Formats: sequence, C-alpha cells, structure tokens
Amino acid sequence: MSKEEITKREEDYSEWYLDVIKVADLADYAPVKGCMVIKPNGYAMWEKIQQTLDKKFKETGVANAYFPLLIPESYLKREAEHVEGFAPELAVVTHAGGKKLDEPLVIRPTSETIIYEMFSRWISSYRDLPLLINQWANVVRWEMRTRLFLRTTEFLWQEGHTAHSSEEDADKRARMMLDIYQHFCEEYLAIPVIAGQKTEAEKFAGAERTYTIEAMMQDGKALQSGTSHMLGQSFAKAFNVKYLSEEGKEEYVWLTSWGVSTRLIGGVIMAHSDDKGLVLPPKIASTQVVIIPIWTNDEEKAGVMAHVSTLLAELEKLGITAKIDDRDMRPGPKFFEWEKKGIPVRVEIGPKDIASGSAVLVRRDSGEKDAVSLNGAAKQIEAVLSSIQHDLFQRALDYRTAKTKDVSTYDELANQVEAGFARAHWCGNPKCEAKVKEETKATIRCIPFDQQKEGGQCVVCGQESSTKVIFARSY
Amino acid sequence: MSKEEITKREEDYSEWYLDVIKVADLADYAPVKGCMVIKPNGYAMWEKIQQTLDKKFKETGVANAYFPLLIPESYLKREAEHVEGFAPELAVVTHAGGKKLDEPLVIRPTSETIIYEMFSRWISSYRDLPLLINQWANVVRWEMRTRLFLRTTEFLWQEGHTAHSSEEDADKRARMMLDIYQHFCEEYLAIPVIAGQKTEAEKFAGAERTYTIEAMMQDGKALQSGTSHMLGQSFAKAFNVKYLSEEGKEEYVWLTSWGVSTRLIGGVIMAHSDDKGLVLPPKIASTQVVIIPIWTNDEEKAGVMAHVSTLLAELEKLGITAKIDDRDMRPGPKFFEWEKKGIPVRVEIGPKDIASGSAVLVRRDSGEKDAVSLNGAAKQIEAVLSSIQHDLFQRALDYRTAKTKDVSTYDELANQVEAGFARAHWCGNPKCEAKVKEETKATIRCIPFDQQKEGGQCVVCGQESSTKVIFARSY
Repeated sequence: MSKEEITKREEDYSEWYLDVIKVADLADYAPVKGCMVIKPNGYAMWEKIQQTLDKKFKETGVANAYFPLLIPESYLKREAEHVEGFAPELAVVTHAGGKKLDEPLVIRPTSETIIYEMFSRWISSYRDLPLLINQWANVVRWEMRTRLFLRTTEFLWQEGHTAHSSEEDADKRARMMLDIYQHFCEEYLAIPVIAGQKTEAEKFAGAERTYTIEAMMQDGKALQSGTSHMLGQSFAKAFNVKYLSEEGKEEYVWLTSWGVSTRLIGGVIMAHSDDKGLVLPPKIASTQVVIIPIWTNDEEKAGVMAHVSTLLAELEKLGITAKIDDRDMRPGPKFFEWEKKGIPVRVEIGPKDIASGSAVLVRRDSGEKDAVSLNGAAKQIEAVLSSIQHDLFQRALDYRTAKTKDVSTYDELANQVEAGFARAHWCGNPKCEAKVKEETKATIRCIPFDQQKEGGQCVVCGQESSTKVIFARSY
Repeated sequence: MSKEEITKREEDYSEWYLDVIKVADLADYAPVKGCMVIKPNGYAMWEKIQQTLDKKFKETGVANAYFPLLIPESYLKREAEHVEGFAPELAVVTHAGGKKLDEPLVIRPTSETIIYEMFSRWISSYRDLPLLINQWANVVRWEMRTRLFLRTTEFLWQEGHTAHSSEEDADKRARMMLDIYQHFCEEYLAIPVIAGQKTEAEKFAGAERTYTIEAMMQDGKALQSGTSHMLGQSFAKAFNVKYLSEEGKEEYVWLTSWGVSTRLIGGVIMAHSDDKGLVLPPKIASTQVVIIPIWTNDEEKAGVMAHVSTLLAELEKLGITAKIDDRDMRPGPKFFEWEKKGIPVRVEIGPKDIASGSAVLVRRDSGEKDAVSLNGAAKQIEAVLSSIQHDLFQRALDYRTAKTKDVSTYDELANQVEAGFARAHWCGNPKCEAKVKEETKATIRCIPFDQQKEGGQCVVCGQESSTKVIFARSY
C-alpha cells in the first residue's frame, strides 16, 4: 500500500482508522510509548471543541481555574475506591532538582484529590456554594494498549468539579453537564448518543453514580464519549470539605465531576469518515469551504481570482470559514488532498464556469457535484453546509438504529454484540453482567434514561427485570 | 494585620505583592512546594492573554499543536548547552504503571528537544518550510526559590517553534515574535518594555541569540517578560532536522523558539497595583465595569434596576464587559471588594442619581469620582476606559524614566541598581558582567535595540565601548 492509500473499512477497520489519521495529518506517534503528538489539523478540531464547550460551561456559571499537575502520592490513597481504580495507571516522579523526593509525586490521572484538598480550604459557609470550577488540562494514565486519540498515555481534557449543599443540587448539576455533552455531540459533532447511567461495575472509581453518553462507531462498537459523576460525599469526607449551613450546622458538601477529552476527536473520525479519508461535520471544521480556482494561463488566472476573492468575502460575511487554494499545481491533486482532509465543501471555479455564471460545488459527505449560480453562491453554500451537518447526524442515527436490536435470549445477545448494540433486560445482578463481559467481551454501556419501565426477564439468568440496558463491545 | 488588609508597598514590597494576590483572590499555594493553584480571577487574566496572543500568532501563519509532557531523558542530553542549563531543574518520572521504567522520562521544562525530534520526521523538503508551530502547555522546572506567578515549579506558557531555510528568515521570525510580545505588553498590559538582546551569559541554554523584553516593576527591579530565541543550527544538528533545498542539496534547518508565561500575570500585578489592591488595565480585565445599584426599599430597587439594566445593555453593545452587583448587602463593602479586585470602573446608581439624571463613576486607577449623565453614559464610560488604559501605560513609563539613569562610574552603577535601571557602557567582556553580578546582584538585562552607537568607556573596566546596556536587579 502506498503511503497515501487508505485501507478499506470492510477490510480492516482499525487500520482504516489509523490511515485516516495519517492522510488527514491529524496526529503522530511520540517517542514515548502510548503518547501522541496532536498535529495542527487535529489540534484545530480540539480548539473548536474547547471554544464551544467552554462557552456553554460559562453560561451555566462555571469558571475556569488551574490546579497543579503533580499530586502527593498520599492524596490518591485517601479515597479507597479511587486509589484502587487509578493506582495501576500512575506515572510517578521520584526525583526532582537532582534529589530524591521525600514523598513521591504522581502526575494527575484526574484531579479530584488535589482539587478537593483546595476546596476544603476555600469553602467555609453555605454562601460559598455552589462552587463551580472547570479546568482544561493534560492528564497521564499509563495504559497498556493505546490507540491515537481514543486511548493515549497522556491526553487533553476538561474536568469540571463542583461542590453543592445538597445531594439534589449535585445530582442536578451532574445531569445538566451530561445534557450539555449530549447536546454538543449531537448538534456539533453530529454524533447521536445514548445517555444513561453506568452500572456499579462500570462507574468511576469513587463516584456514587456515573452518567454517560455512549456513541456507536461504524464498526458497531461503543465509544464512551463523556461522563459526569455525582460523587456523593465520600471525597468530601476524605478531604474534609465542610461548610457551615444556613442553620449553623457543619455539613459535608456534595461533589460532582465531569469530563470530555481528545477522545472526542477519535469519535468524530470514526463516526463519519469513509474510505476516501476524513469527513468533518461543518460545525467542527476549522475550514468549512475550500475554493479551488482553475486556470491555464495568467490572463485566465486574473479573471478567476477576482471571482474567487469575491466569493471568499461573501462567505466570510456569513461567518463561514473558507480558504482559497491557489497553489501552482494541477487541480486534481488538490481535490484529492482536501477530500482526504475532510473539508465539507469544495468549490471549483474556472473560466468556463465564470462564462456560464456558475461554479461547481462538491459535497464531501455524499460526493454530490452540483452547479451553483455565482450570484448568491455564498447563501447556497451556507444551506449546503447546514444540510451536510444534518445529514451526517441522520446517517449516523440511521446506522445506529439499524445496528441496535432488542434481544431476549443469551444467544441473541452474544450474536448481536458482534455487530452492534444489544438492548436487553438485566436483573441488576453484577454476576450476570460479569458473565456477559467474560464470554462476549461486551459490557453494559449504560442504563438508558429514556426507557419505558416494562417487565421482562434478565437476558442472562431469566430473573424478573424492569430495566433494559445497552450491551456492546467498546473502545 | 487582618486577613483583608494589605501591607503598604513602602513597608514591604514582597509582602504587598502577596497581599494583593490574596485580596484579589488570584492564586493559592498548592500542597507541593513551589506549585500554585490559579484561581478563577487569576485564570481569567490568563485567558485574556491567551486569546489575544493566540490571534496575533495565527495572523502570522502560526498553527497550534500539542506535544507530549514526557520526554526521554536521553533527548535532553543531545544538545550540550541545553542539558547543562536545564539538568538541575528537572523532575524525573522513574516509575509508571507499577513498574520501573527502562529509561527515565523527564517532565518537559521546555520542549525544544521533543519538538525538533518530531520536526526531523515531518520536514523533508524546502516546500515544508517555514514550519510555524505553537503550543499552549504546562512545564515544570524545579526551582529553589519560588514566588506566585513570577517563578513557580509548574507554570503555564506558550512556546512557539519554527523551522526555516535560512538564518535570515529565522532571525526575522525571532524578531517578529518579540515585536508581537512588546506590542502586546504595551498595548494590552499597559507595561512599557525595553526590547533588546541578551548577553552570552544570559541567553537561553542552547540558543545562538536570545531577544528579550524587560519591564520595570514598582520596586525598580526588572521583570523579563518574554523571550525569543534564534537557535541557529545546533538543535537541528542534534536532532537531525534536515531538508532538501531547491537546489537539491541536503541542509540543516534554522530554528527559533519563543515564549511568554503566567509570569505576565505577576508583571501586571506588580506594574500597576497600589496599596488598595489590584489595578487592572481595561484591556486585560475580564470585567471592565461593575455597576452597583443603590436602594433602601423595594420600590426604589425596581426603579434603580431598570436604569442599571439599560446601562448594562448599552455597555454590552459597545463590547464592554460589565456586571451588576445587586447582592443584598450595603454598598460600602461592595465598593471595597471591587476596588481590591482591580475592576477598572465602578458605577454607582441610586434614586438621587436617577432624579438628577446622572450616575457616579469612579476610576480604579486614580480614585477620581465624577458624575456622568445617564443619557449617553456608556459612551462616556468607554472613553474613561480608554483613558485608564492610556494613563496606566504613561504612569508606568514615567516611573521607568524617572528610575532609569545613565551612569558612567562603577559607584554610580552600584548605587543606581539599588533604585532602578542603570544604562551604562559595557565593553563586551563577560568578566566585567560577572563582577557586577557578584558585587551588586544586578545583571545585564539586555543590550537595547534602540540606541545610538556612540563611543564611551566600559563602566567596569574603562575599556573602549560602543554599546550601552541595561543593568538591573531582577525577578
């Protein structure tokens, strides 16, 4: 295979994914195992994600802050479930400034411990609540098996941390942030997600309840795309985060934490791309339109460039980000390049087009080619971008619908998770959950919020069940 | 001293600085020695710095990317001067995932080594040049003496890295980025800076030339506020960053790197604040105007709030960020609070003001109090903000001018660096430079670009000199 060819999804989905990353120039492997370099094209996606989410967080009263990378090892140990979950993944600094440290420091795998230590110093009265903080940061988890964007030793994320005076407030906040994630994934990334609660076995180490959004990739596997935790009071007790209530009583706060990461970039790639390369939803594309002027001599070029510049200005006026590719090379390789890089719309303008008062518009998602009138082209392009955004979501939703089945027997379940999501009754017994995981490699992705309570039998043990869950293999 | 009082600058400048940080709620100490937590008020300043600079970088063709936190220890050793400069400050990860690592990893103190390793994989032809990359990241340097914002073990910064096909291009880029830093400091942070070149003794470890901007704080000391390095080809040789030239010859690239950090926040605090607390230049204040409605009963409140909301909307229309403080408490403590936090303009509106069609406007920088007509108040406030921005810069410039003296004898030099900057002839001999440093604690901050070449005698040894330099003590 030449460097620039892409493995077909049908042949090898994993290879296809890595090929798309390579041809779209999104990331590279770093010298340290499991670490990645996010290249400009990939980082531009992260910047879009950051800008959009940051604004949404702030609209709900959240403020950004920054907490240290290095955490005393002893902090991790204060919350029993938490340390059990994270201890195997820690990177440890034992030496600094040329000396052995008295106490080893861990590189944050997540920042609950250090942040709640600070909360305990900052919160004293009910007037200090709710405290709503977020940080954009890097974290390190020593993973055995890594994959660009989806699971890397170091990754970028945001982690929100809030403190409340009641369980109800904390739970409301945890759900509110999950709603923001869901809305963001569906409206911006064009990825439909199933929102629900994690089981005890799958919840965050130290949380009372974990809420999650789960997306389906084009191989039928699930991608956990964002989680929000109602942490209860266990961390508050471990870090002594107390406040004086309005009634003058000393109480522990209720905490939440919630995060999404650069993994979302992997989700966008896997959800929409095709055998020609990356496909970007317009709302997450840093360049939405590429305009390719076509000419054979200097005289033609001058005429074409005049029209091209006018179109660029008109697009910018509508808030559409476009760029002109007027490099001195044949148009074919340019088409090919922007196709691989996922730019949603390509516009070709040559002397013949100008003579007929039109331009050629090509949609990246469908490959459809249409003539658009040069007069009013920007407005038409705007409509096409909006249609691409909509169609990508709909296509992903249709795919998920087709690949999701209600199953009522264990055999059906085992079969269905080879292809997609299985919706099934589960009695709530962790043993049934563990058996499925061991035998089929599928886990319960979530207990969807959106379900009718209807009686049934557990797909594993046949016991009575009132709850349906989603079983799937996952990244 | 009560927690809310501020040490006077004259009494103890260092304590004053820390008090301002405390009362303005900008940062806190982290549990790990030398690390800090940047609280929302402090982080909002960093966000303003990031947004402004990021836009300016991108306008010059720079793209953001992200490189790993962890660097193989051996990489640091490849450039001899570089490792000598940074080895004493490294934090080292020796264990990860429950095992001892084969090769220790260092937490990046700066990213030249890892980035140029990647450049060597990405650059092959002159067509790949210039390569213009920036990253926003955290770095760790194990410092002995730390001070919030000015020198912390971990800090946030941006580091730009560019590769060029000629020394001239690289030097032009290094100077261009220094110009951006200078413009930013002067226009946005209202801090006048002296731009110039570092001496051999003071340059970045591994650079061929280091350019710097130096600001004067209110105690007459210098703050190095941004640096830009023309790295020459030494890193290119150490990391084998080569390209095929247009003539088909294999050549090493020319590299630059440049950075500013959260230290700039310390600079803003020290340059403008006073004994009442923080003073923020309007262009860096995330809230530029606080509006304080004054009422004694509900009826009054309704009338006042109507006017206050109108003013807020008018301000927002002008792009001014304002907030209403309608907390149910007496106005006095509110005035005091926003004064400490440095909000540039305070507007007070009560029933009497409304009756007379005016509002009270108080400037944070000068304390001046004026009545402004409610009709057209937003426009007047806009003018006042612009005047505050201008006046803060002018005041800082006047201060620097008054505290900078040309000196021609060693005694004068030794005296002057107790109070401020000394401008003096220097022959270029590192021994003269070292003697001054040892005996007066002052270093050569820079060889200013802006100087007439005029003959003179070295202030230390009396030898002929054609160059004047700035001596000062520094942070």
